[in-house]
Amino acid sequence: MDLETLRHSCAHLLAHAVKELYPKIKLGMGPAIENGFYYDFDRKEPFTKEELKAIDKKMREIAKRKLPIEEVKLTKKEQNDYFKQEPYKKELANELKTLTFYKQGDFIDLCKGPHVENTKELKGLYKLPRAASAYWKGDSKNKQLQRIYGYAFKSKDKLKAFIKQREEAEKRDHNKLGKQLDLFVHSSEVGKGLPLLTPKGAIIKRTLQRFIEDEEMKRGYVPTSTPVLTKTELYKISGHLDHYRESMFVFEANGEELALRPMTCPHQFMIYKSKMRSYRDLPLRYAEVADLFRNEQSGELHGLIRIRQFSLADAHIICTPEQIAKEFEDVVILIQDLMKILGFKDYWYRFSKGDVTKKDKYINNPKAWKDSEASMKKILDNMKLDYVEEEDEAAFYGPKLDVQMRNVYGKEDTLFTVQIDFALPERFDMTYEGKDGKKHRPMVIHRSSIGCIERTMALLIELYAGKFPLWLSPLQVKLLTVTDRANKFAEHVLQELRKAGIRAELDNRSESINKKVREATLEKVPLIVVLGDKEIEGKILSVRTLNGEVHNRIGIKKFIKLVQENINDKLLIFEFK
Amino acid sequence: MDLETLRHSCAHLLAHAVKELYPKIKLGMGPAIENGFYYDFDRKEPFTKEELKAIDKKMREIAKRKLPIEEVKLTKKEQNDYFKQEPYKKELANELKTLTFYKQGDFIDLCKGPHVENTKELKGLYKLPRAASAYWKGDSKNKQLQRIYGYAFKSKDKLKAFIKQREEAEKRDHNKLGKQLDLFVHSSEVGKGLPLLTPKGAIIKRTLQRFIEDEEMKRGYVPTSTPVLTKTELYKISGHLDHYRESMFVFEANGEELALRPMTCPHQFMIYKSKMRSYRDLPLRYAEVADLFRNEQSGELHGLIRIRQFSLADAHIICTPEQIAKEFEDVVILIQDLMKILGFKDYWYRFSKGDVTKKDKYINNPKAWKDSEASMKKILDNMKLDYVEEEDEAAFYGPKLDVQMRNVYGKEDTLFTVQIDFALPERFDMTYEGKDGKKHRPMVIHRSSIGCIERTMALLIELYAGKFPLWLSPLQVKLLTVTDRANKFAEHVLQELRKAGIRAELDNRSESINKKVREATLEKVPLIVVLGDKEIEGKILSVRTLNGEVHNRIGIKKFIKLVQENINDKLLIFEFK
Repeated sequence: MDLETLRHSCAHLLAHAVKELYPKIKLGMGPAIENGFYYDFDRKEPFTKEELKAIDKKMREIAKRKLPIEEVKLTKKEQNDYFKQEPYKKELANELKTLTFYKQGDFIDLCKGPHVENTKELKGLYKLPRAASAYWKGDSKNKQLQRIYGYAFKSKDKLKAFIKQREEAEKRDHNKLGKQLDLFVHSSEVGKGLPLLTPKGAIIKRTLQRFIEDEEMKRGYVPTSTPVLTKTELYKISGHLDHYRESMFVFEANGEELALRPMTCPHQFMIYKSKMRSYRDLPLRYAEVADLFRNEQSGELHGLIRIRQFSLADAHIICTPEQIAKEFEDVVILIQDLMKILGFKDYWYRFSKGDVTKKDKYINNPKAWKDSEASMKKILDNMKLDYVEEEDEAAFYGPKLDVQMRNVYGKEDTLFTVQIDFALPERFDMTYEGKDGKKHRPMVIHRSSIGCIERTMALLIELYAGKFPLWLSPLQVKLLTVTDRANKFAEHVLQELRKAGIRAELDNRSESINKKVREATLEKVPLIVVLGDKEIEGKILSVRTLNGEVHNRIGIKKFIKLVQENINDKLLIFEFK
Repeated sequence: MDLETLRHSCAHLLAHAVKELYPKIKLGMGPAIENGFYYDFDRKEPFTKEELKAIDKKMREIAKRKLPIEEVKLTKKEQNDYFKQEPYKKELANELKTLTFYKQGDFIDLCKGPHVENTKELKGLYKLPRAASAYWKGDSKNKQLQRIYGYAFKSKDKLKAFIKQREEAEKRDHNKLGKQLDLFVHSSEVGKGLPLLTPKGAIIKRTLQRFIEDEEMKRGYVPTSTPVLTKTELYKISGHLDHYRESMFVFEANGEELALRPMTCPHQFMIYKSKMRSYRDLPLRYAEVADLFRNEQSGELHGLIRIRQFSLADAHIICTPEQIAKEFEDVVILIQDLMKILGFKDYWYRFSKGDVTKKDKYINNPKAWKDSEASMKKILDNMKLDYVEEEDEAAFYGPKLDVQMRNVYGKEDTLFTVQIDFALPERFDMTYEGKDGKKHRPMVIHRSSIGCIERTMALLIELYAGKFPLWLSPLQVKLLTVTDRANKFAEHVLQELRKAGIRAELDNRSESINKKVREATLEKVPLIVVLGDKEIEGKILSVRTLNGEVHNRIGIKKFIKLVQENINDKLLIFEFK
């Protein structure tokens, strides 16, 4: 039995059940999809959990009936009657050359097939996890319908395993944990795709930002700080306005056309061009954690992963042609180092090339595309980098190396990119004076290191299920008092920790120590310190880590040193050395 | 002799001279202003320096003629002939009730007077520093005219003293030094009022930003990170759209009205409102170095001081009414501490009150204005703060305490503000649960600490004439080799300094040591280290500071420790301890 056939038959079973429960409801589409199927129905309110239960029950009933699923021929009149009842199917039929119908019991669907033989074959192989609203044909100009999603697999075991894995992923879902751990919120008054980082989330962002800024300074980058508001004139020169306009926010003010910048390159190029440059000044590595904007469609927005304003750890390396291979390699090494420090392991490289036939999407210069893709391939091969090649995934101005990852749900995304740009130095007429005293054209590498900081935060939340490594954790130590007798000692320890730059809080409520430990564990604080009479007396600390390790009788100074070392070394798992 | 009379007579003298040199030129306005006068003339090209010289010569000539300056009566016909030649004067005459004319030699001007007795009295009391373009009546919809500026004072000595002081100020002008020291640039393609900070400027900004972020964390603030792009819905609630719209960038995208935020308060309020809050959570001190936008008029823009996008060290303290006085006081203490660390001395406090008659400008609630101004006055008096009171200078939602300073040219500006807000907690329906288990309304303090970072940078550049204290200086140490023999040792020292987090550069060009020292001095590097044979041999350093202090024979480790201590202590003048 083909998996797609199974899933599509499940969709019919779902629609059959809904039709028996809501005879007048109109059917939309019901395809097989990854992991299962869905079916759309025309009604105003989303299906409730209770309704889904009732529908599930009805599906089981129909499955038991062991109804054969067969192709049927309908007369012209029967077809007309059917389409009168099902206007959406009529619209679909108008787009088809030949019409075929499948029938099970009283239920008929316009459908190409094939299907399983009878409804009983589907028994126990599907599950309805949720309902949602969806536009007819996915177009927001159309009417909003109500969709029911289903999972379906070839065996009960496979279904069970999938559901378990999905539950595991949901526990790590950064949207869910973001709310639970109070890392970020959304506000309908602020707008979609514009998350607000609360203090805990903002601390993670700041920590990541300072980390990458310092790391880049160490590696010879220099910072810039440039405005997000810009005349579109700048993006006419760069070509963004021609190749990227529909993703940009563009508007008028004071008789000028302005844009919120989608990329930092033109700004850094203007700084480059503000002075005469010599070969002695190169390479120039301009870095900025830059706020950027994308006019993403509502439906594409997702938590911290797809948003309309984000901070990219961006940089542009302007260098001589002789320097390009070494600079490219250094960027890849930087990225590899960062991935290791952050703890990302399951990533891979994608060599993303252009498509010279798409003249709207890419700068039209076939020879330059060929040359730069060949030279990039040479660099990658020399580095012995393991990569997949993909056509039609380049930047509009040149090929790129993407660092790819999957989120907890298996959705692939680009985390970081390194691009070789053959087009913009020409367009911006960037030059440097060579050893020969003549003007030369520099080359440019566009790169992100730690990527879009919000997206990286999302992937870190999911990677660690909220249990961040100490250096990244918004709260690092929580002090819990066993009784009020510990309050004074606890205040003293708190001040010492804070003076040492450690993010610490004190829970001195008159609650039981068990309750306090439980709550601090839910908060996923890396280090929980319990302060009772023994501790006060000995001026010592009892420390437990999130994974249950307990260490008693640690002196305050020793503990502070331990914590500072773990932070400075950015250790992924706390080490009692 | 009245100073304004003198200055206005100088304006006539200027116009007289211009008319003799360019008989057909049309006259605009020619008033007395602060420090002197100007006169506008209708022509396309600005006056060149050479032309100004010739005009000055002609003015001296006319002054020597000792022409009496007298009021004259013109017949109707004479008036008509005059206005035919001077269309701008005709326009002015239409707005006047009575017309009076003054005459000196052949030159006649529509003018209320009074004037000095004759042109010779003006001899040597004026100077023409520059020419510029200006719109007729200052309105950008009108024709552009050409303006000549003049200084004028009652005595030659006073004029000389003023010019000297002005030259001194120009040396400190942050626009001039910003260019000379390569701290920031402007680009016509990016737009007016949107400076780009180059690496050196960006380092200063980053240093100030991290400094204030850390300082605020120490004082119990918590960070947020919120988007600059926002639906205007948010600013409808806050009242910005009603009271502030003409200063905002507002536009449409995807059928929504969006704005670039002018202030951070509504965003931080949405975070406050994302959870139930208890009296135990207060005070909540939300801080963010926030990018903000002002749609400033072209003519108001100035260097880093008035710009269209800037980063404000913003915060909002949400507290109970019982906490407000203490919180207010702590903010003033924070500001005083910061001013001391930055080295600002000449500042004063302004208590800025509203004006209940201006219902468009301020939220219409006379009782609340009265109460909050009284309670703010009480706090200021209790603190024994020395302040001036000013009407009609408040925020639209409440009174404020401004920290005022003058820039090098004597122009007054607000550096930091602390505001008590009685209106927005109500409008946003912010609440907290009190000890009594009931809902209460919190109070809000809006405050900036280090102000708009770009503006603070500008004032620091002018305060220090570019000779920044070590901790703020983009480049802290410059190593200079006397001969190539020092190259290896210099590289070693450079790496040691950089490893220690010190911003250092090496000048190992084959140039004379005198030239290198001269250039590093022009660059205003705080510490210049000269490396010759003696230093290589003894593995020691010879260090000179910008104010000429020289210290020989310092060991590398000791020097690094010294530099680090000076940086950590944020000393304003380098100390060899």
